[in-house]
Amino acid sequence: MKLTRMTAKEAACFIKNNDCVALGGFSPSGTPKAIMSAVAEKALAEHQAGREYKIHLNAGASVGDSCDGALSRADAVISRIPYCDNKDMRQAYNKGDIAFHDLNLADNAAFLRQKLTHVPTWGIIEAADIEEHDGTYHIYPTSATGIAPTICHIAEKGLFIEHNIWHEKAIKGIHDIYEMPNSWEHHIMRISHPTQRIGKPYLSIPAERIVGIVECNLPDEARPMPPSSDIHNTMGGHAADFVHWNIRKGILHPQHLVFQSGVGSVANAVIGAMGRDKNIPEFSVFTEVFQDAPFSLLQEGRIKGASTGALTLSPENLRLFYKDIHLYRDKVVVRPSEISNCPEIISRLGVCAMNTAIEVDIYGHVNSTKICGSNMMNGVGGSSDYTTSATLAIFTCGSTAKDGKISSIVPFCSHIDHTEHHVDAVVTEYGVADLRGKCPAERAELLINIAHPDYRPILWEYQRLSLQHGGQTPHMLTAAFALHDTYLRKGDMRLVDWNEYTIK
Amino acid sequence: MKLTRMTAKEAACFIKNNDCVALGGFSPSGTPKAIMSAVAEKALAEHQAGREYKIHLNAGASVGDSCDGALSRADAVISRIPYCDNKDMRQAYNKGDIAFHDLNLADNAAFLRQKLTHVPTWGIIEAADIEEHDGTYHIYPTSATGIAPTICHIAEKGLFIEHNIWHEKAIKGIHDIYEMPNSWEHHIMRISHPTQRIGKPYLSIPAERIVGIVECNLPDEARPMPPSSDIHNTMGGHAADFVHWNIRKGILHPQHLVFQSGVGSVANAVIGAMGRDKNIPEFSVFTEVFQDAPFSLLQEGRIKGASTGALTLSPENLRLFYKDIHLYRDKVVVRPSEISNCPEIISRLGVCAMNTAIEVDIYGHVNSTKICGSNMMNGVGGSSDYTTSATLAIFTCGSTAKDGKISSIVPFCSHIDHTEHHVDAVVTEYGVADLRGKCPAERAELLINIAHPDYRPILWEYQRLSLQHGGQTPHMLTAAFALHDTYLRKGDMRLVDWNEYTIK
Repeated sequence: MKLTRMTAKEAACFIKNNDCVALGGFSPSGTPKAIMSAVAEKALAEHQAGREYKIHLNAGASVGDSCDGALSRADAVISRIPYCDNKDMRQAYNKGDIAFHDLNLADNAAFLRQKLTHVPTWGIIEAADIEEHDGTYHIYPTSATGIAPTICHIAEKGLFIEHNIWHEKAIKGIHDIYEMPNSWEHHIMRISHPTQRIGKPYLSIPAERIVGIVECNLPDEARPMPPSSDIHNTMGGHAADFVHWNIRKGILHPQHLVFQSGVGSVANAVIGAMGRDKNIPEFSVFTEVFQDAPFSLLQEGRIKGASTGALTLSPENLRLFYKDIHLYRDKVVVRPSEISNCPEIISRLGVCAMNTAIEVDIYGHVNSTKICGSNMMNGVGGSSDYTTSATLAIFTCGSTAKDGKISSIVPFCSHIDHTEHHVDAVVTEYGVADLRGKCPAERAELLINIAHPDYRPILWEYQRLSLQHGGQTPHMLTAAFALHDTYLRKGDMRLVDWNEYTIK
Repeated sequence: MKLTRMTAKEAACFIKNNDCVALGGFSPSGTPKAIMSAVAEKALAEHQAGREYKIHLNAGASVGDSCDGALSRADAVISRIPYCDNKDMRQAYNKGDIAFHDLNLADNAAFLRQKLTHVPTWGIIEAADIEEHDGTYHIYPTSATGIAPTICHIAEKGLFIEHNIWHEKAIKGIHDIYEMPNSWEHHIMRISHPTQRIGKPYLSIPAERIVGIVECNLPDEARPMPPSSDIHNTMGGHAADFVHWNIRKGILHPQHLVFQSGVGSVANAVIGAMGRDKNIPEFSVFTEVFQDAPFSLLQEGRIKGASTGALTLSPENLRLFYKDIHLYRDKVVVRPSEISNCPEIISRLGVCAMNTAIEVDIYGHVNSTKICGSNMMNGVGGSSDYTTSATLAIFTCGSTAKDGKISSIVPFCSHIDHTEHHVDAVVTEYGVADLRGKCPAERAELLINIAHPDYRPILWEYQRLSLQHGGQTPHMLTAAFALHDTYLRKGDMRLVDWNEYTIK
């Protein structure tokens, strides 16, 4: 059976108002770029013609501006699942114009299979190559897979394949495609070292499921991260010292170090610091994104193996990766998101998880997602998948934001994504608070001591007020969010007036 | 090598001021009873003589009043880890007199091995029988194991064995003793069905590790739960209907149902309702405590197999269990707490977790531990181990407490143990809020609709005020804890005056 070739615009014609589209790729590597741009243009034309046109969108994680940005600017999205870091879409869902459902990335594929989220009408997958084998097509993904294995069989009306020749066929063999079985099959995930393979290097799709092939030549949309600041590097140094301390204590094994590195500049700085610290032997990564910093460490031989959900390299570095791919074939595995973020495997590999926090409260709860409790930043991503299952879960955050007007250590997190029960240690530029085995009073002391010096007396005053109320984790609930409210009203948390928060 | 027999008082002589004692058993089944009572008496005598005497205490979970109660009344505890439900000790740690460190029960043994909590000076294990084999003693635990496998090799100065003849030797063979290897060994936990065995039925202890054997005859201290109320039974019925709905939707498999049932009367009512509902086929349990209600279902054949951390049966039912133990040998396995609560196994078995909440907020976060944010109730127990790994995580709570003066559905939980990222559904007597795949606005509507009718307008008003602030999860932070504060000041959440919480 011959596949139908079509333009992105022709493919977009299939996608109707109220349809749900699911995308392969991950954060935003390997996400389709051609058809969704055409859908955004179609939406603008439809709206101009006075017709309703909006779709539901589900992706592995973030997608490029060609999709999230273009669609939200075209007012073409009803709902979006899960992680999303596009500023236009962020604005829309925080205004309530788009229903944004945050979800652990490990759960997205299972929720699709269980039909707990919108059933996709269509699926779109970016391919580096397509091969026919007796009426079945082998689709080789590009720089990420995301939820593609599930989309392939769950999309109601079929699939579009974007054959993007910007990527190189040489990537064939890097992927390990495997879909989780149903929970009641009591299946053992037989991955016992980071780069072990259990699946196939391609997606297998019956010809009749493929509605059309769209040829394109579009660069990947992962952006290079802003360079790490001095504060980031200081935090990285503290984190590396702390890891070394855990090795000396026998909690981590020097020959079997496996790190997760999170998303963003801080994550780059932290994994970079691990690489530079000669007290830390060469290590592996089991992670959801593989950014430029770990790629440098792979080139230097400091990283001996990497499992990732996505090659989130800048286009330049991705080109370099393709050029030298023969060097990385045995060392790098790209996995679907439900495997890259699979709690069972993260737990088994004894992963040391390193994620960034927006804020941390004095008892060790972490906010990763909401500004002042209400405004979603990006989403929880894989931070909960990793934090709940890691052997050692570390959070990093600069002690302040907005030129010192915001403290990252607060009396009570305005939103909680990770609880005291899973947060092991917190790192700011002032040091490390190791919370393991500590009771609440000890935790508060450790955390206040790594707050910015401007905020330490403020936090101690909150503690003093709270202690009058007693309890194992003393709080004065009317003042728990005093810093946040002061920032919202006066623009600087340091201007807090506790008298305003004590109801007489 | 002959073991030294001694009295409980003689054993207590070994335990010095500032020592750390670790106890086998779990919640409070199979916990030692004789020596700790003697330690409490010793403490009183020491204090009377003007000498300091306090110890650190670590147990599998809760222990009986003979230990926690007696010790805290004797003012003999510096610190206590982890779950503890004794009212005298609760009072002491909420006053700040005892440092209480709450911990996921799955993590307790690993924290001990990693020396992240106090290294026990002594371990005490209750035994149903003791056998010698070439200088090694096989210790057969009684109704629970808890952290005993780890205590055996980690206690610095050695072990005391309480040979409690109240238990019957017939229990030999019910236990499956297995200790988790180090995280860097990348070990697969090869348990693929609830009652699969991977260990031995006894603890193996070199003779030289055993300091003394104390003979005793003391009943187990698990108390029968108060009978379930009409509200509990209504919630149980809703939970059973919801499980049945999930079976019909293909999310749970009727032939492979595995339930966790939590602790307390509500848990008894919920598992009882599952048993009574003929739409639900016979099922297994993989759980941390096995209370009287599931025992009835086992007798009736509704439960086909049970893995548990403890036989938390009333003394009468435990006697009955021993009498008919030949009927249960193939059907019941008692595991150490790090295995009964092991996230990897809970995830693999597709467990449907059912725990009780103190309060739930309008976006689906759950408080399991703290009253009004500060006062610890008992501890997180295994609720986080199960909730984060379950296929379906359900929380139940009556819509109100204290004769309607407290609402269990609140704007913002005063403490968060389980986040929106893991809480799948909430059940009150007014119905089920299925939160899976829902965005925050939908969650709030579902949850307010199962609040008590008295509180629905109050919660809607909070929503209305919050919406003025915008965001994906709108909150008005100064009023987030208005209901809690109103209860603390006026004794009834319904008396909330929103004007008091709006800073002008």
